[in-house]
Amino acid sequence: MNTNTKRTPLSDFGEFGLIEHLTKSIKITNKSTQKAIGDDAAVMNYGAKCVVASTDILLEGIHFDLTYTPLKHLGYKAAVVNFSDIYAMNAQPVQLLVAVGISARFCVEDIEQIYEGIKLACEKYNVDMVGGDTSASLTGLTLSLTVLGEVDREKICYRSGAKVNDLICLTGNLGAAYMGLQLLEREKKVFEGNANVQPQFDGYDYVLQRFLKPEARKDIVDLMADADIIPSSMIDISDGLSSEIMHICKQSNCGARIYLERIPIASQTFKISEEMGIDAVTAALNGGEDYELLFTLPLSLRDRIKDLGGVDVIGHITEAQTGAYLITPDGSEVILQAQGWRHV
Amino acid sequence: MNTNTKRTPLSDFGEFGLIEHLTKSIKITNKSTQKAIGDDAAVMNYGAKCVVASTDILLEGIHFDLTYTPLKHLGYKAAVVNFSDIYAMNAQPVQLLVAVGISARFCVEDIEQIYEGIKLACEKYNVDMVGGDTSASLTGLTLSLTVLGEVDREKICYRSGAKVNDLICLTGNLGAAYMGLQLLEREKKVFEGNANVQPQFDGYDYVLQRFLKPEARKDIVDLMADADIIPSSMIDISDGLSSEIMHICKQSNCGARIYLERIPIASQTFKISEEMGIDAVTAALNGGEDYELLFTLPLSLRDRIKDLGGVDVIGHITEAQTGAYLITPDGSEVILQAQGWRHV
Repeated sequence: MNTNTKRTPLSDFGEFGLIEHLTKSIKITNKSTQKAIGDDAAVMNYGAKCVVASTDILLEGIHFDLTYTPLKHLGYKAAVVNFSDIYAMNAQPVQLLVAVGISARFCVEDIEQIYEGIKLACEKYNVDMVGGDTSASLTGLTLSLTVLGEVDREKICYRSGAKVNDLICLTGNLGAAYMGLQLLEREKKVFEGNANVQPQFDGYDYVLQRFLKPEARKDIVDLMADADIIPSSMIDISDGLSSEIMHICKQSNCGARIYLERIPIASQTFKISEEMGIDAVTAALNGGEDYELLFTLPLSLRDRIKDLGGVDVIGHITEAQTGAYLITPDGSEVILQAQGWRHV
Repeated sequence: MNTNTKRTPLSDFGEFGLIEHLTKSIKITNKSTQKAIGDDAAVMNYGAKCVVASTDILLEGIHFDLTYTPLKHLGYKAAVVNFSDIYAMNAQPVQLLVAVGISARFCVEDIEQIYEGIKLACEKYNVDMVGGDTSASLTGLTLSLTVLGEVDREKICYRSGAKVNDLICLTGNLGAAYMGLQLLEREKKVFEGNANVQPQFDGYDYVLQRFLKPEARKDIVDLMADADIIPSSMIDISDGLSSEIMHICKQSNCGARIYLERIPIASQTFKISEEMGIDAVTAALNGGEDYELLFTLPLSLRDRIKDLGGVDVIGHITEAQTGAYLITPDGSEVILQAQGWRHV
């Protein structure tokens, strides 16, 4: 579970001692953070800004498998995934609250690893850890993170603002995290069959990193702010492109056309998908955990978004009654569904 | 686990379906709530107010025992306990985010019961449920709640503001929740020995309610606001009076004297403690889960706080080097400790 040789039992600290130990090195960097850890609640002062808040719960065996997830990566990912929700509102994450349930098989060094990962994410994304709760757990490891962000009122992006003829834009590429997971699951099975076999991960670093240590698209949100671009709607891709398009269509009361050949898929994702007999487009549409941003923009901003770099225009918004479809290169239409896609 | 006969499997809804089902009847009442459930994050607008935030994690087998905890009560208590942290900052809770991990043995009606309890607490305390996350769990039931509150900047009460000679004040009475828990544990053991035996709870309603369905002291916070009383420090009592006094002493760099005969204990608490052979004062000092408010005030406000009603003055703040002691009626001093108390 970790490479340290020292394993301090949790009982060496009490609850208060453990929190103090884990949080003593935390520095505060945001002006809006008035009081962080150490009272009944954290205190923030946002002035005239709007506050956005999102919470995520991560449970052992459901959201992560400790057989192949280093605890530091787990902490990092738990934080970043939550930040991604805040960027999807066109906001900046500023404060984080962390609640952890820890079962007896973990030691202090394990929990330190989780916090190290969370702190690393906080430093990289300029977020203050301002509160938390640690508890014993009789069952598995549980992480629950809540992140607060801030944004000027006129810049907030909901899922509901897409308009007919808007461009559908996407950051980065899709399907890599899903292939990373498939690879880890495959090697886990091999390993379980023969503990002497070393996992074969050479040349797969990109998809593994996309799954184990994803990043949130702060860079694009910052670039758009600099370029005065405000999306008409935005969502982050946690459950696959198909599902997220459906969310925007439902909440904006519109339809959509996505062009198959415009969906960006990394070459390593293609390579592994062929090797494993998984359709790369299915991984992109339904795989999930990409944490890229999907957003819509008025047609008039086409050149400005192309000049930004790192963003692809993959389709456009249509009237609600036309539905949401994927257009293949031969011109046939495939209906998009939250639970997958099928031919019509 | 619940009294409904209908048991809808969780698989009848998907994740999105379940959240929609559980949250469709939720009404928004606070002006600062701009956008609640249904996007990547909730959006709040606090204007010139300070925002306070607190998170709590509740795990099956650690924080609650479903043998004797009705799910609706569990939801109510989970919310109220979190609100209590916000009142302890002299703030008003306004928004709540709820994350739930649900194992397969629960059905939709069970989760409805939990949400019913949370909604009831939100209605009573005028809090908007603005976000959440539901997940499958391979282990037990997990609840993680984060509450946001608001307060004028000049009215915030930290644990760190107590001054020498300040009065130490306490709302309500202590030890009842602890005795309620002891009673439930006793009856559980009897029940496990003989399933035909009905638990004996007659006449114990007060202590049971204090444990199973506690309330937060919004009333006192509101009364103090009306009377222009701002405590110099404040904390809520979740781990017993002794532990909370120590927190104030540590963070305010002061000592304290508490008078044993002034600690308010309800008659039913005394009665049950005698019956069960547990010292009622120990229950008050170290029992926990009372969710009363402990605060300090300048001596000049003595008459105004007495006129308020519902608040007892139980001691005063001293210099740090004098330590924190309980004074017994015969004048002897007992050192206060976070982990209990011992004679010196």
